[in-house]
Amino acid sequence: MILVGIDPGTATTGYGVIEKRGDRVSYLACGVISTPPEDDAPSRLKTIYDEFNALLDRYQPDAVATERLFFTNNVTTGIPVGRALGVILLAVAQRGLPWKEYTPTEVKSAIVGTGRAEKKQVQFMVTRLLGLSEVPKPDDAADALAVAICHAHSVRLGSLASEAAGPLPARAASPVRHGVRG
Amino acid sequence: MILVGIDPGTATTGYGVIEKRGDRVSYLACGVISTPPEDDAPSRLKTIYDEFNALLDRYQPDAVATERLFFTNNVTTGIPVGRALGVILLAVAQRGLPWKEYTPTEVKSAIVGTGRAEKKQVQFMVTRLLGLSEVPKPDDAADALAVAICHAHSVRLGSLASEAAGPLPARAASPVRHGVRG
Repeated sequence: MILVGIDPGTATTGYGVIEKRGDRVSYLACGVISTPPEDDAPSRLKTIYDEFNALLDRYQPDAVATERLFFTNNVTTGIPVGRALGVILLAVAQRGLPWKEYTPTEVKSAIVGTGRAEKKQVQFMVTRLLGLSEVPKPDDAADALAVAICHAHSVRLGSLASEAAGPLPARAASPVRHGVRG
Repeated sequence: MILVGIDPGTATTGYGVIEKRGDRVSYLACGVISTPPEDDAPSRLKTIYDEFNALLDRYQPDAVATERLFFTNNVTTGIPVGRALGVILLAVAQRGLPWKEYTPTEVKSAIVGTGRAEKKQVQFMVTRLLGLSEVPKPDDAADALAVAICHAHSVRLGSLASEAAGPLPARAASPVRHGVRG
């Protein structure tokens, strides 16, 4: 399955495209959608929307994952990033694609094994897991690949949990929901 | 000219539609686009986008104005509101409509004459300026009408400033930009 990870922003939206086959992930593409600061907000959002749709056309992903963003210092920063995320998620909904979002801690845990990992450790592991010869550039593209790998990991854990759970016990008369993701 | 004011939010996006003829403004419509909390974020954004486009189809406005949002307490609130604003501005860009945003202080100043006006004062003046028999409900719709009236006021001030400025002095050899809005 093809997975797209997104690290949204108005000036720079990072994207990473990977393929998941069984337990393996492999690299397909990464990069950034950049918008010029001299454009007004609607034009910049249209650029992000159009280029993200072109990406979806090209790679026909099975799912999209985004990083859930937190702002502790500069509160107004949340609005421009939220706007960019809005047009990404609109495109996701218009194609009926499955979508998941992950906190930075979840992404770090999935890639490095600890939610307290530093950026460099995450980049090192992304490079290694995808068998690349060097760290993907710029940082937003590497971050987006990390989100995509995190989603691949989550899908895999979901199917393992499903296998481990086995068939439902016969005494469960009421409908039971599996805790399976993806 | 037809003006649309928007007060964005994921659960409730308020809209107000007015007509400006010379110095007069008149009421055309107001209401809210509501999205159910049980829908996921992409679905809710698609609902806002589709219903806002239906509004633009119906009223064919000449411009759209939005309220610039600030968050001082709960920083994560900025993201959902920013996402909703993102799909609104995308629709604006796709139709090539002029767009302006105003701070809450600018809106209050334009409607009541002071940026420190209370919500009830703003609602009272919106009702009076539009010649309505009662305060528009809900609050998000009244707020959106206030933004639309603020933009009408700004367009009017812009044209007054343009007339007052008169022709450019002959000695201005380099291109001079007018400070005209709208």
